Amino acid sequence: MRALCKTAPKAGFEFCEVPVPNLGPTDVLIRVEKAGICGSDLHIYSWDKWAQSRIKPPLVMGHEFMGRVAAVGEAVRMVSVGDRVSGEGHIADGTCFLCRTGQAHLCENLKIIGVDRDGAFAEYIALPEYNVWKLDPAIPDEFAAVFDPLGNAVHTVMAAGVSVKSVLITGVGSIGLMAIPVARAAGASAVYAVDVNPAKLELAKKLGADETFLATDPQIVEKIRARTHGDGADVLLEMSGNPQALDMGLRAVRKGGCVALLGIPSESITIDLADRVIFKGLTLLGINGRRMFETWYQTEALVRSGRVDLKPIITHVLPFEEFERGFDLMRSGEAAKIVLDLKGIS
Amino acid sequence: MRALCKTAPKAGFEFCEVPVPNLGPTDVLIRVEKAGICGSDLHIYSWDKWAQSRIKPPLVMGHEFMGRVAAVGEAVRMVSVGDRVSGEGHIADGTCFLCRTGQAHLCENLKIIGVDRDGAFAEYIALPEYNVWKLDPAIPDEFAAVFDPLGNAVHTVMAAGVSVKSVLITGVGSIGLMAIPVARAAGASAVYAVDVNPAKLELAKKLGADETFLATDPQIVEKIRARTHGDGADVLLEMSGNPQALDMGLRAVRKGGCVALLGIPSESITIDLADRVIFKGLTLLGINGRRMFETWYQTEALVRSGRVDLKPIITHVLPFEEFERGFDLMRSGEAAKIVLDLKGIS
Amino acid sequence: MRALCKTAPKAGFEFCEVPVPNLGPTDVLIRVEKAGICGSDLHIYSWDKWAQSRIKPPLVMGHEFMGRVAAVGEAVRMVSVGDRVSGEGHIADGTCFLCRTGQAHLCENLKIIGVDRDGAFAEYIALPEYNVWKLDPAIPDEFAAVFDPLGNAVHTVMAAGVSVKSVLITGVGSIGLMAIPVARAAGASAVYAVDVNPAKLELAKKLGADETFLATDPQIVEKIRARTHGDGADVLLEMSGNPQALDMGLRAVRKGGCVALLGIPSESITIDLADRVIFKGLTLLGINGRRMFETWYQTEALVRSGRVDLKPIITHVLPFEEFERGFDLMRSGEAAKIVLDLKGIS
Amino acid sequence: MRALCKTAPKAGFEFCEVPVPNLGPTDVLIRVEKAGICGSDLHIYSWDKWAQSRIKPPLVMGHEFMGRVAAVGEAVRMVSVGDRVSGEGHIADGTCFLCRTGQAHLCENLKIIGVDRDGAFAEYIALPEYNVWKLDPAIPDEFAAVFDPLGNAVHTVMAAGVSVKSVLITGVGSIGLMAIPVARAAGASAVYAVDVNPAKLELAKKLGADETFLATDPQIVEKIRARTHGDGADVLLEMSGNPQALDMGLRAVRKGGCVALLGIPSESITIDLADRVIFKGLTLLGINGRRMFETWYQTEALVRSGRVDLKPIITHVLPFEEFERGFDLMRSGEAAKIVLDLKGIS
Repeated sequence: MRALCKTAPKAGFEFCEVPVPNLGPTDVLIRVEKAGICGSDLHIYSWDKWAQSRIKPPLVMGHEFMGRVAAVGEAVRMVSVGDRVSGEGHIADGTCFLCRTGQAHLCENLKIIGVDRDGAFAEYIALPEYNVWKLDPAIPDEFAAVFDPLGNAVHTVMAAGVSVKSVLITGVGSIGLMAIPVARAAGASAVYAVDVNPAKLELAKKLGADETFLATDPQIVEKIRARTHGDGADVLLEMSGNPQALDMGLRAVRKGGCVALLGIPSESITIDLADRVIFKGLTLLGINGRRMFETWYQTEALVRSGRVDLKPIITHVLPFEEFERGFDLMRSGEAAKIVLDLKGIS
Repeated sequence: MRALCKTAPKAGFEFCEVPVPNLGPTDVLIRVEKAGICGSDLHIYSWDKWAQSRIKPPLVMGHEFMGRVAAVGEAVRMVSVGDRVSGEGHIADGTCFLCRTGQAHLCENLKIIGVDRDGAFAEYIALPEYNVWKLDPAIPDEFAAVFDPLGNAVHTVMAAGVSVKSVLITGVGSIGLMAIPVARAAGASAVYAVDVNPAKLELAKKLGADETFLATDPQIVEKIRARTHGDGADVLLEMSGNPQALDMGLRAVRKGGCVALLGIPSESITIDLADRVIFKGLTLLGINGRRMFETWYQTEALVRSGRVDLKPIITHVLPFEEFERGFDLMRSGEAAKIVLDLKGIS
Repeated sequence: MRALCKTAPKAGFEFCEVPVPNLGPTDVLIRVEKAGICGSDLHIYSWDKWAQSRIKPPLVMGHEFMGRVAAVGEAVRMVSVGDRVSGEGHIADGTCFLCRTGQAHLCENLKIIGVDRDGAFAEYIALPEYNVWKLDPAIPDEFAAVFDPLGNAVHTVMAAGVSVKSVLITGVGSIGLMAIPVARAAGASAVYAVDVNPAKLELAKKLGADETFLATDPQIVEKIRARTHGDGADVLLEMSGNPQALDMGLRAVRKGGCVALLGIPSESITIDLADRVIFKGLTLLGINGRRMFETWYQTEALVRSGRVDLKPIITHVLPFEEFERGFDLMRSGEAAKIVLDLKGIS
Repeated sequence: MRALCKTAPKAGFEFCEVPVPNLGPTDVLIRVEKAGICGSDLHIYSWDKWAQSRIKPPLVMGHEFMGRVAAVGEAVRMVSVGDRVSGEGHIADGTCFLCRTGQAHLCENLKIIGVDRDGAFAEYIALPEYNVWKLDPAIPDEFAAVFDPLGNAVHTVMAAGVSVKSVLITGVGSIGLMAIPVARAAGASAVYAVDVNPAKLELAKKLGADETFLATDPQIVEKIRARTHGDGADVLLEMSGNPQALDMGLRAVRKGGCVALLGIPSESITIDLADRVIFKGLTLLGINGRRMFETWYQTEALVRSGRVDLKPIITHVLPFEEFERGFDLMRSGEAAKIVLDLKGIS
């Protein structure tokens, strides 16, 4: 079958022919129809430090996708050939303390598709049945293809708890953007967004942000306090991984507030724990992946009810062949979310 | 009246005569009988950087105490002359969002006795009635005198939640030591303690720690994992303020675990947020003061029921006049908790 | 001053002249401008069993109101003459365990205005400063006058937690109706309403209910399951006090779901605890009053942000003199919420 | 193999020969060594109304057990032949919303061993690997045999949350008795027990209850208030299923307190919801089964650490053949918990 692969330890991806994945008794084979490009795909494409330390070529790329079930192992019970599905790309071991107490997203032996094992930029992908998510007919294909990053946004928002709270989002890349309609639908009484990119802030407004601020604005903390009775935002969703953004956000959040950390700093950062966290009585939450499968049920409810509309975020749907153009559009900051269409390939 | 004061911006305390505090309509005047010496008193005594930036002499020192009500303002309703009391030393404004939503311990306008206003190393102290805590007859004077730091320990333990959990405590100064019987009484299934001082670790064992480790031991993380099915401790109580201890603790706590931060680092610290917090799905809680007055009710219940016994921690009860000896004993690490007896003074 | 009173132990209210209330040092005197009529006022008017057991005439009626501060006691700090205010009508003692641990709404010694002490259907009402709520200029008078029942709705919704959950409301009297926009604004992904009154269900739809059901419909449970993947609603807000509604609601809520009970049954009821509650793993919450003052901050945020609009619910604003017409409109079920205008009286 | 069976729809059990269970690819065959007799076994033995409606003979009885793995299906990964194990007797479908969101104990399609499918009073039992619990070597056989009811106690205690709280237990049958050391170990600051049987109350004291009351004592509520500053107990664990006990317990628990309901009333009961639940602001929790597998990890931690000792509760260990004597001892109230020894059978 045709697949987009990292074939060697250097920059770039290339198409190659690989065998259709084998199917164990509890596995599901999925014909991929649409797949999203993630920021981490760009890191792997560029072959940066993180990618060099983590990725072992050759590897089929891609971890955001939807498609149709093409075959099922003999012990599979929940899905059937022809079902329209997406999938949780974090493969947990199912046997450890974390897996057995509802925290499979933190399983010590996690394998991620398109990172630790073959991914979804391919004609077919095989997943354990446990990881397959049957799609409601009301969910459009393009939205289903990006349930992975949308699930990151939902997980972050729901972990922090935003119901009747003011919410500050630092960093509105594609997940930060998704977090805006999610936070509004989940009950945020105000959503503020900060980014370095004015175009992203435009999009943030379109998606429902009550107000946006350029990251270079030295008055953000004061402005947020002015809009929150002088207290600061109830909740900070840190989605940039940027140390300055985090420090500003910690100052802009109110005492006793909650901070959900999804953005990954590229190296260790320096924090004034005493004044920013301890004396303020903050709660900080490290967020990773999606809860299996609370997050998926919540994601479905949000999209199915029409409370969350991703149309303004999915700026491009490109044929699979044009993946290079996709990466160019992402690098330039022109695109928010790009979905590749794999239907015609073979 | 006689009081122990910081009279000038330099090291040391001295006895001086100051007027008995004025009493507003909602205030309570307390004849101090016993008062604890806190680590922060030592910082103020030594006149370190933090003290220089915070303390405005002249000031009566001391914030841990018990005594008897000597007079009450005309609007006071809960306490009467003669009542045996301790007091919450954080004076909140009572009018802000935080005060009006059960988070008075985080009030933006907090004034701390012995730090921002006159304290308890004196014949008398005046407190708003709201801050006065009537003592159960079953609570010994010495224990009542240190309800402030004991309350810090209780607040930290209860915020983290230790019921049927394994608990690692980094730093067993007096509050860390108190946290050991508190955590056991609150339901911890195992308590591990780490410190640089072997004598404190001895005391930790006596207080109920299941096991103790010298901070210099390079195998602490592995040893704690070995005692917790390889997962790590469920809860970390960070009570040292030391960056190395925090980093070790973050490694020793399990994925999805909870970290309560009470120890105050003396400056900004560097953290690997990605690997230590985000990918581990940790919850970090900044802890300050005591919840008004959940913590006080809990503290009373723990001591009154006999579940928590402070006798091994209160290593010295000294006459007020011998405060210098008290500071010497603290500096040397010889003492755990020192209580001054003010009964005879005048 | 002029006031609407229960003067004797029999049906009806009448206008009478009573003295302007005395003002203690921590009290606030408020010139009442608008006041809501509550269902419980109707019970007291009709002099039913509950009213006979609870009300001791003579008494000034009314507990939902807004107005302007006319005078303040000498110890009052937060409000000034001329401030536009509403007020929490549950007067707590401020000294008990519940008051001192953030649960003043459950204070054993609660006194309710217009029930246990003189109320707001009068030119002036006096309240402890603690109970006064300063109004944001963006809140219209009519909405401010009904912050008490709106607060009941907010308390119920927030206690249950509705963020990205499906919500069933049994009973859409005025508080049930208010709960609809509140639940939507707080993040409910679907809101279903049940009542015996088709006109109220019409109003429920206008206020944002996704679907409504007549209480006589024998298929409600099945219909709700059909809209929730067969599981049942995540949350039940019981606002009718009716045993049949409660039983139906308990069947319609999903296993592991949450039930908030605000409606007051007029007598003891029979419940199949085993099948309806225990085997289903339900959580039931008794809801009373409003949290002081989380609920008030949340209520303000919801109204100020425009997320909650009460216009369709406040069906009538009547001059104070026409209170009899107000009670007639309520009895007939024609009105949802009636506000009395007291501005012109004297 | 030999098994103790209900062979016909009438009272009694009898030994019979049945085939060794078949083993699916994900199943585990266990040689039963010890098995506990549960109160529900007695109901089935006596063939009461509930039993008649639920049990379809022929059926192998018994659901509390421990043993050793005799064989494993080819897809089993976590356990091996020879492993010492106990097992979760509630078989969930693994595919529904509840199973996929950490609430498998509430799965709509639950099948219970010894109730809906063949049980553990037999030489062998087969369980899905998912349900098998590998035993820590430090857990004695007798304790492991009753991890099912002990897990009920742990689930109830942990759901209510007892850390630094006063706890009232109504009904000290075997699970109520187990709840006493569990609550103490989990951090309860006081444990009160109520029962009709003085011998059980004796045992309750031995197990750590601070005080016990005969159910016929008309002053229980007042006595509990007297021991809790007049407020009432923080937590009620209802383990009797008796309506009078529930009503008394609801009066004895404090406003804002928590009530965990494990005892199953034999029919619908009448409750004064208004005064007992709503105005008191109580939280009621329906408890069923054990959380998979938080409860099992907690149960293990409690027993392994020595915090919970079941010796005083397991009053009899009888040879399998003497099961009739076991039922007699249970009926007479003489026994607390009876364990059958199956080692010698074949």
